[in-house]
Parts: sequence; C-alpha cells; structure tokens
Amino acid sequence: MKVKIQLKLAYRLLNPGPTVLITTNFRGQFNIMPVSWVMPLEFDPPKVIACIGKQSHTHRIIRKTGEFAINIPTLALLDKVYACGQVSGREVDKFRKFKFTPIPAQKISAPLIKECVAHLECKVFNESLANEHSIFLAKVVTCSADKEVFDKFLNVKKKSCKTLHHLTGKYFFVPGKIVVAR
Amino acid sequence: MKVKIQLKLAYRLLNPGPTVLITTNFRGQFNIMPVSWVMPLEFDPPKVIACIGKQSHTHRIIRKTGEFAINIPTLALLDKVYACGQVSGREVDKFRKFKFTPIPAQKISAPLIKECVAHLECKVFNESLANEHSIFLAKVVTCSADKEVFDKFLNVKKKSCKTLHHLTGKYFFVPGKIVVAR
Repeated sequence: MKVKIQLKLAYRLLNPGPTVLITTNFRGQFNIMPVSWVMPLEFDPPKVIACIGKQSHTHRIIRKTGEFAINIPTLALLDKVYACGQVSGREVDKFRKFKFTPIPAQKISAPLIKECVAHLECKVFNESLANEHSIFLAKVVTCSADKEVFDKFLNVKKKSCKTLHHLTGKYFFVPGKIVVAR
Repeated sequence: MKVKIQLKLAYRLLNPGPTVLITTNFRGQFNIMPVSWVMPLEFDPPKVIACIGKQSHTHRIIRKTGEFAINIPTLALLDKVYACGQVSGREVDKFRKFKFTPIPAQKISAPLIKECVAHLECKVFNESLANEHSIFLAKVVTCSADKEVFDKFLNVKKKSCKTLHHLTGKYFFVPGKIVVAR
C-alpha cells in the first residue's frame, strides 16, 4: 500500500543511485523509459535533475507536457526494466507489452506504475541542452512510497527492497549490506 | 596500480550512483568533499553533472578554478568519507586530518586521492544556480582506474570493490549481487 511521503524526504529515494522508470502521458498515450541519470538537486522544496536522450520519445513528450513521474523499480522487475529500454514508445505501448499497471498520479497527468515501490511526481521548470541529452530540472510536487517497504522516514525496512543499479548493458547490481559510519 | 581508461567508458564509474570524493586545489591548498549528487551527462566525449552546496568551501574553489577531480572511494574508507563531510576545508586540511594521500592528476591541478579506486579529472564548462546548490557541468578530460579492481572495460573484477551508496545520515549500502537481465 502506497502512502504519501513528506516532500523534504523525497531525495532519499534517489540518493543511492537507482535506475528508475520515467512515465509520461501525451493525450492519453502512456509511455515508460528506464533512466539511470536522475538525481536530487535540492532537498526542500525538493527538485531533481533528469538527463534524457534527445532521440527518445520520452524526451519529446516531456518537452510538450512539462511533466513526468519517477517510479522506483526493484529486482522483481529486472527483465522488464531492461526490455523497456530496448524499444521505443513511438512503436510500442510499453504498459501493455510489458504488463505494467498504470495508476493515476495525484498532481500530474502522467501515470504511475503500480508494480514500483515509490513514485515522485515532477513538473519541469527548466531545460538545458547538452549534445545528446537534455537536462530537465523539475520540482517534485508529490511523493509516495510503499509502506511495506519503507518506513515514514524512507528508511528501507525490508531487506527485500532491492533497487537496481546499472553497471553496463544487461548488468545491474542490487544493494548488499547496509553499513554505518562511526 | 592505476591505468588510463578509455574516455568513452568513464560514465560507467558513476552510473550505479556511488558517493564520490571531490578534490580541489586553490593555490596549493588541497580540499576534499564527499558528494552523492554527481552523475553522467554525456557518454562520448564524456561529461558529468555535479550539484554542490553553495555554502561549501569546495563550491567557492570550483568557481575560482573551474576544475575538480572525482575520486571513487570504497568500503575501506567509510568512516573517513563520512567524517570528511562533517568539517569544512575552510578550517581543516582534510588530507592531513584524515590521512588521505594526494597524488598529482594528469590534466588538472587538483590532486587525486591515492586510496580511491578510480579518478575522473574534470573541467567545468557551465554553471547554473538552483536555491541551495550550483549545478556544475564538466568535461571529463582524463580517467584512470585501479587495474586490480576493474578490467579495461571498467567492469568490476573483484567482489571486494564495494562502492558506497548514501542512504541518509551515517547509513550507506554497498553493492550486493550482480544481476543480469534476460
């Protein structure tokens, strides 16, 4: 069950560097793109940076709508996360093809992915261009997380919360031991 | 032993989201700052984005010099990485206090940290301001990695290469199992 999370804690979902699934909506057509290059920019009010390849369908939709959702997948979705990056939303309805379940967001029109453990709803306030990628700066307008997986401070409760961290190609690692500095 | 890495592979060091140590040099005064908000921006030629708090000493030095190095620490350095973020380079010589060994970089004047397993030497080409942070966009001008830890394609060779991934406060996780998508 997903519960609302204090906005000032939202950065904790992205801090350790998970690969995420970015969802968009263009006139009722939902799309999904796996992205590793997303990170926090500000704590409170929370802002994020997402670098998105200019050739992607997602890039075009974010430019048109100014909105996207960040969904956090876990190990159970490994094959789908990878496969989702191998086809384009121009040709394929990825929700249908990969059997993801869209659920409504609270504050944006882009859908959330039910099978993911947390969601950040984002509105773009600035874009810069690099060569192959755009840098989207976005406000996190609302945030929710699975209360079976995270406590209310977004600490990981269960060892089974295995986010995916992209190495290269088909290779990812999942979190191992939690360590505490002195 | 550190060997030069093909620049187009440099992104692989940052892709899975490690906490890094950023080093700077202002007129012979070296400094170190642990940073989680660094990620790739372009593959080839490689560029990176670093979000740095405006109040930090490192922020001031990067603005003055336009240069920094990204050093990748591992679990062996956990306590030092955390402690390094608790004091300011305005008051403390962190290389001395935390017993890090500075070694010369190839193409910038900022030092590298010998105890880290990989290094990206960076030159800033653009800065944007957010509220509390600056967004530095930088070119990676050279890259090196420990050949005992990585193969020449920057795949992790040894299970003992435990990068640090910041959760919150004193808590980090280290990589667990490597998984492969179908």
